[in-house]
Amino acid sequence: MKTFILENGVKVFQYGEPIDTDAVYAEKLKQKFDEKLKPSFKEDGKAIINIELEKEDMVYGLGGNLGGINKRGRVYQSYCTDEPSHTEEKTTLYGAHNFFIVSGKTHCGYFIDFPSRIKYDVGFSTLDSFNIEIFGQDFNLYVIEGETLEEISSKFLQIIGKPYVPPKWGFGYFQSRWGYKNKEEVLEVYNTFKENKIPLEGIYLDLDYMDNFKDFSISKERFDGFKDFVEKLKKDGTYLIPIIDAGVKVEKGYDVYEEGIKGDHFCKDKDGKPYTAAVWPGQVHFPDFFKEDTQKWFGSKYKLLTKSGIEGVWNDMNEPAIFYDQKSIDEAINSAIESKGKNMDVFSFFDLKDKFANLANKDEYYKSFYHQVGNTMKSNDEVHNLYGHYMTKSANIGLKKLLDDKRFVLISRASSIGMHKYGGIWTGDNCSFWSHLDQNIKNMPSLNMCGFFYTGADTGGFGNDCYGEMLVRWLQFSVFTPLLRNHSAIGCQNQEPYVFGKEVKENSKNLIKARYRLLPYIYSEYMKSVNNYKLMFKPLSFEYEDELAKQAEDQLFLGNELMIAPVHKPNHKGRYVYLPQKMVEVSFKGDCESLAVKDCGIHYLSYELEDFKFFLRKNSIIPHINPAMNVKHLSQETLKIIAYVDSEAEYNLYDDDGISHQYQQGNSFNTNIKITRGNDDFIIEVDNSNPSIKEIEFTIIDSSNNIKNKKIKL
Amino acid sequence: MKTFILENGVKVFQYGEPIDTDAVYAEKLKQKFDEKLKPSFKEDGKAIINIELEKEDMVYGLGGNLGGINKRGRVYQSYCTDEPSHTEEKTTLYGAHNFFIVSGKTHCGYFIDFPSRIKYDVGFSTLDSFNIEIFGQDFNLYVIEGETLEEISSKFLQIIGKPYVPPKWGFGYFQSRWGYKNKEEVLEVYNTFKENKIPLEGIYLDLDYMDNFKDFSISKERFDGFKDFVEKLKKDGTYLIPIIDAGVKVEKGYDVYEEGIKGDHFCKDKDGKPYTAAVWPGQVHFPDFFKEDTQKWFGSKYKLLTKSGIEGVWNDMNEPAIFYDQKSIDEAINSAIESKGKNMDVFSFFDLKDKFANLANKDEYYKSFYHQVGNTMKSNDEVHNLYGHYMTKSANIGLKKLLDDKRFVLISRASSIGMHKYGGIWTGDNCSFWSHLDQNIKNMPSLNMCGFFYTGADTGGFGNDCYGEMLVRWLQFSVFTPLLRNHSAIGCQNQEPYVFGKEVKENSKNLIKARYRLLPYIYSEYMKSVNNYKLMFKPLSFEYEDELAKQAEDQLFLGNELMIAPVHKPNHKGRYVYLPQKMVEVSFKGDCESLAVKDCGIHYLSYELEDFKFFLRKNSIIPHINPAMNVKHLSQETLKIIAYVDSEAEYNLYDDDGISHQYQQGNSFNTNIKITRGNDDFIIEVDNSNPSIKEIEFTIIDSSNNIKNKKIKL
Repeated sequence: MKTFILENGVKVFQYGEPIDTDAVYAEKLKQKFDEKLKPSFKEDGKAIINIELEKEDMVYGLGGNLGGINKRGRVYQSYCTDEPSHTEEKTTLYGAHNFFIVSGKTHCGYFIDFPSRIKYDVGFSTLDSFNIEIFGQDFNLYVIEGETLEEISSKFLQIIGKPYVPPKWGFGYFQSRWGYKNKEEVLEVYNTFKENKIPLEGIYLDLDYMDNFKDFSISKERFDGFKDFVEKLKKDGTYLIPIIDAGVKVEKGYDVYEEGIKGDHFCKDKDGKPYTAAVWPGQVHFPDFFKEDTQKWFGSKYKLLTKSGIEGVWNDMNEPAIFYDQKSIDEAINSAIESKGKNMDVFSFFDLKDKFANLANKDEYYKSFYHQVGNTMKSNDEVHNLYGHYMTKSANIGLKKLLDDKRFVLISRASSIGMHKYGGIWTGDNCSFWSHLDQNIKNMPSLNMCGFFYTGADTGGFGNDCYGEMLVRWLQFSVFTPLLRNHSAIGCQNQEPYVFGKEVKENSKNLIKARYRLLPYIYSEYMKSVNNYKLMFKPLSFEYEDELAKQAEDQLFLGNELMIAPVHKPNHKGRYVYLPQKMVEVSFKGDCESLAVKDCGIHYLSYELEDFKFFLRKNSIIPHINPAMNVKHLSQETLKIIAYVDSEAEYNLYDDDGISHQYQQGNSFNTNIKITRGNDDFIIEVDNSNPSIKEIEFTIIDSSNNIKNKKIKL
Repeated sequence: MKTFILENGVKVFQYGEPIDTDAVYAEKLKQKFDEKLKPSFKEDGKAIINIELEKEDMVYGLGGNLGGINKRGRVYQSYCTDEPSHTEEKTTLYGAHNFFIVSGKTHCGYFIDFPSRIKYDVGFSTLDSFNIEIFGQDFNLYVIEGETLEEISSKFLQIIGKPYVPPKWGFGYFQSRWGYKNKEEVLEVYNTFKENKIPLEGIYLDLDYMDNFKDFSISKERFDGFKDFVEKLKKDGTYLIPIIDAGVKVEKGYDVYEEGIKGDHFCKDKDGKPYTAAVWPGQVHFPDFFKEDTQKWFGSKYKLLTKSGIEGVWNDMNEPAIFYDQKSIDEAINSAIESKGKNMDVFSFFDLKDKFANLANKDEYYKSFYHQVGNTMKSNDEVHNLYGHYMTKSANIGLKKLLDDKRFVLISRASSIGMHKYGGIWTGDNCSFWSHLDQNIKNMPSLNMCGFFYTGADTGGFGNDCYGEMLVRWLQFSVFTPLLRNHSAIGCQNQEPYVFGKEVKENSKNLIKARYRLLPYIYSEYMKSVNNYKLMFKPLSFEYEDELAKQAEDQLFLGNELMIAPVHKPNHKGRYVYLPQKMVEVSFKGDCESLAVKDCGIHYLSYELEDFKFFLRKNSIIPHINPAMNVKHLSQETLKIIAYVDSEAEYNLYDDDGISHQYQQGNSFNTNIKITRGNDDFIIEVDNSNPSIKEIEFTIIDSSNNIKNKKIKL
C-alpha cells in the first residue's frame, strides 16, 4: 500500500498496481498517513471494505443508479449494463460511478478508482453495515475529508477535472424516437413543431438513419440527400443528432470493418482473433478503444457525419451491450435439439427456456474478449467500465478535430467517472413509468456529484406507452435538466408533445417555452457549476440538517436560487412540499408570472397540469427572457429579473459565445445584479459586460408580498 | 336488450344471452327503463362502452389490479393472469373484478358481469375518456345509483352476497415460504418463533410438502408422519395450511389422475381428449370445475388433508397458469433447429428468443381447451375468469362437508367476483419491492369494493430479496389486513421476522403482538363489514370531498374508527399525513400506548422502525386486549378501550365463537360501549352479552389532551 496526497488535501491509498482509468488528473505527492478504511484482501482475489453505519448516517453519490438520493437499503453494482427493465431488484444500470459520501455526525467522501465490478451493500443485508466488495485488489482509494457535504463534493469535482461543456444549443428541447423511419418522417416532426409553434432545438436520429445498422453509414433509401437535409434544418437553428453504436458490423467490403481489420482495431478473443458477438447488425467486432490508435481512427470516422453538417452525436450500446455470442446461442440451440420429443420435467424446461431468455449480456462474454491495455492484454471484464468511457473519449477527440474546436453535443449511454470530461450521458433506456420520473429526479444530484452535469432522462420514458398526463408531469421536471430530450422506442405509443390532444399540446408547449425563458439561468448555472466545481442540482440536505430536509427526496435545489418540487404521481393536483426556509412560489402563466411568499414549513402545493412552478429562495435573483423557437432565435435584449429580496440579493449571470471553447480562456460575459432593500424602495446595482443585454426589467417581491416593478436601460 | 330491477333498486341491462357467472344472487324483476350507458356492438364480436370523464371525476374499484385507489390514467384488463412481475405497464394481475364507480358531481357504480376479457382504458389514451372494451356481446350490466360512494358500494355488496368468513384463527399471523423443504425445516420455523416468543398462528406449506408436485399427495420422504405433525402443532394452536394447484399430474396409477380420467373430470381439447399442458408437475390435465360433478369430486379430494387434521388450504396456479403446451414448445424447438448454424439477422434472433421467453400463459392456450358449461362446450377463453373461482367453490363445497360445518381458511390466487363467497384471496405473487407495499395499501379498498374482505399481500414480498427495514415497514401496514401472511420464494432471501438481526426481530415481534392486541377490533370490523355490507377499508374520499382527502392514496380508514397512514418508502423516519378531521395519534409502545390529539390538516408524522402508530377518529372507541402467542391463547377477560371523546362516542364490539357458522343464525356476542362527556367526567355505559369479558379498562382522551383512566368490572 502506498499513500499520496493531492493538492487539495485529498488522500490517496494505492493498493497493488492499479490500471490508469483516466479519472483523476491531479498530481499525487507521496505522503505517509494511516489507512482510514482498511480493505481486507481475500484469497478469491477480491477486496472487501466495511463501513459501520450509524442510525442517522446517510450515503450519497453512486451516480446513475437506482434507489434514492440516500443510497441506504439497497445493493448496487458498478458494472455498466444494458438494463432497460430497471425494476427494483436490479443493482446496476448504464454507468459505473464509484464516488460516495458517508454523512452523519461527520462527513467523508470516497472514490474507488477501479475499472471492473464493485458491489455495494449499503445497509441492505445488515441495516448498520455498508459492505463494499471490489472484484480485484489493484485500485486507488481516494478519501475526501471536509467540513460540509458541499466541500467534499467540490473537492472531488476538483480532482476529476471539469465536466464537458456542450454548445448553448445543447440546452434546447430535443425530440427523438427510435422509429422515425425516413427523412420524410423526421421532416414531418419538424414541421409539426413549427405549425404548432412549439420550440424545437433538434431531432435525435436513432438507428433508422443507418444503412443496415452500420456505423458511419447513411441509408440511401431512407435518408438520401442527408447533407442538404441537415443543412436546411440547421439554417433555421434545428440540429440533427445521429446515433453511433459500439459494434462494427462484420461485412466484407464495408469500409469501417475493412479498415478496422487492416488497422488491427478490434478486440481479440482468447486466440487473438477479432472477437465476434451479435448486436443490432448481427455479427459485430468491437473496436478496442483502449488503444490510442483506435481512439483516433474511430474518432476520425465521425467525419462521415460532420461533413454533412452534423455537430452532435450520441454513442449507444457501449457497455458494450451484447445480444448473444455464437457459443451461447449454439449451446441454447443444442439444448433445444436434445429436448425435442421429450416430456421434460419442470426444471429441465426452465433450464432450456432460460438458455434463450438470458442470452443477453452474460458475464462470460465479458471474460472472453480482450483489450490491449498498455503492453498487456486485459479481458473486458477486468476493465469493463472503461469501454463506453473510451469510446466517448474517441468521439470527443475526433469531433474536436473535425469541427475545428467548435463545441458539439456528445452523449453516451455507458460511462464511468472520467468520461464526464468528454461528453454527457442520458440515463439510459428507461420506461414510461411514473417510478422512472421519480428516479430521474433522484438521479440528478447523484450524477452531479460524480461529475456528470450534462445529463437528463428520456422525457416521457423510452420503453412502454407514455400518455398525456405523464408527458406533462415529466416535462414539468425535465425542463430544468441540462439535457432535455423526449425519446421513445419503436412499437410504443408516439409521445411528441402534440400527439395527446389539445390540452397536453398546449401544456407541453408552455413548459418547453418556460425552458427557453429560463435558459439564461440554466446555462449560467451550468457554466458556473463547471467552472467553480459546484453541484448544479443539490439535495436539500446539503444545506439543511433537519429531518424533513433529509427526507425530501423529491425536491432539489437548482443552483443557489431555485428549489424545484415536481409532481411525479398520477392523478394528483398538487403535492406536499417542505420549505426549509421562507421562499417565493413562482408560477409561470403564459408569458407572465405570479409570485407568492410562503413560510418555512410543510405546504400543500397546488400544481395542475397547466401549471409551471418552482420556488425562489430568500434573497435570491433569477433571470429569464422571452422564449423563442430555439436558441438561435433567443434574444437577451430585454433581460427580466425575478427577485425575492428580504435584505439583499445578488446574482452573477454568466454568458459566453455558446459555441467556441474560448470560455476556457476566460472569454465570457458577466452581468452582476445586486438588489438591496432600502427604506421605501430597492436599490439596484448592475455591473454588465454582456453587450447583447440592452435593458433589464425587474420584478421584486419582499417578504410581505409587496411587489415592485422596475426597468433599467443599460 | 332486457332490463330488470333488483330489490335494492339496482338496474340490470341484459345484453344477449349471458353465461351465469355465480356473481349475483338477487332476484331480478322485469322493469323497463332507458339505457344509462349504451354499448355499441362491433362486427368483431366486441362491445364498447364509453364514459366521458370530467376533470374532477375519479374512478374507484376494479379490485386486485395495479394503479391507485383512483384508477384514472391507466389501462386495465380483466383476465386472470399469473403475473409475478407486475411492472407499471402490466394491465392484468390475478383477479378479474369488474365493479367500478365513476365519481364526480354525481356517483354511479357499474358491474359488468361477463366471464371473459374486458379492457378498461381509464383516461389513458385520451385524458377525458373512459373506454371499455368487452370481448363478447353477452353480458349483464348492473347500474348502481346512490347518493354517496358508501351507499353505492354497499348496494353492490348486497347484490353479490356476503363474503366468506374464515375462523377467528385465520386472523392470526402466518409464516410461509416456498422452500421449507421438509418437516424438520417447518418445525425449526415453529420452534424459532417459540424461542423468540413471536406470536405464530400457523405455517403455510408450499409445493414442498407434495410428492412430485402431485395434488393430494404428501411426500413420504420429506413429510412422513404428516398427521401426527399437524395434530401436534394444532394442540398448541398452530395450524398448517397446505397448497393445492389447479393442474393434476398426468401419471398412470396416480389416483387423482386415474379418477379424473375415469370420471371424465378434465377439460377437453378440440378433439374431445383431455387437454394437456405443462405446469409444475410437467404435463397436467385441468379439472373442469364448471361441472358440478367435478366440483364435488375435486372438493372431496381435500379429505387427504382434512383427515390429517388440516383446516385450511390455499388454491394456487388457478388462472390457470400454463408454462407451455406441446404445440408451442415444439414450435420453439423447431425454430431453434432451423436456426442452427445460420448467421441470423437481429429480427430472426429476437423471434427465436421470444419463442422460448414468451411460452408462459399464451392467449392461444386458453382458446384451445374447453369446459362443459351447461349443455355446451365453451373454450376456456370465453369463461376464463371463472376458472379459479369455481376451483375455490369446489374446495369450499368439499371442506364444508369434510369439516362438519367448521369454518376453514381457504384462499385462492385467481378470482372473480362471486368467488368472494367461497374464499379469500392473497394478492398474488408480488415482489420484495417498496412499490408493492404501496400497491398493497392501495389495493385494500378496491378489493373490499369487489367483495374481497379476507385478503392481504405477501408481507415482505414473495419474489426477490427482502431486507429488514422493508419487512418492518410492511408489517406496520399488514398487521391491519385480515389475511396476514409473510411469504417468500425459494432462491430469495429468507424473511422470517428473526432472520434480520435483533432490532428487526424485536420490532417485528412488537408489530405482530400489536396485531393480536387489536384482534378483537379487526375481527369485529370484519364481521360487521360482512354482515352489514360495508367496506372494512375505505379511502378518505369516501367520507371527505376536499382535494387533500381525494389525493390521500396512501391513507385508509379501517372501520369507522381508525385511520392508518403507513410509511412505505425506504430511509424515511416519518411521512406526511393529512388529517381530514381532528384525530388522536395512537402509538403502541410495548404493552402501553401513548395518545396525542392532532388538529385537522397536514402533519409530518414521525414514524420510526420501532414504532406502531395509527389515528383514532374523533368520538371513536377501539377495543384491544393483551397479546398472546396465537388466537387460542388470547384472553378477552380484560378488555381495554382507547377512546377519543369530544362529545359522545359509541362502539359495538362484535364477537362470536370464531369456529362455527352459528353466527349466520345470529349467535354472536355484542359489547356495546358508549361514552358521553359530562361536565367533569365521562359517563360510560356498557351493554355486554359476551361472557368472556370480565372487566374493561378505559383510557379516554378529550380534545384538550386530557386523559382519564377507568376500570369497570362486569
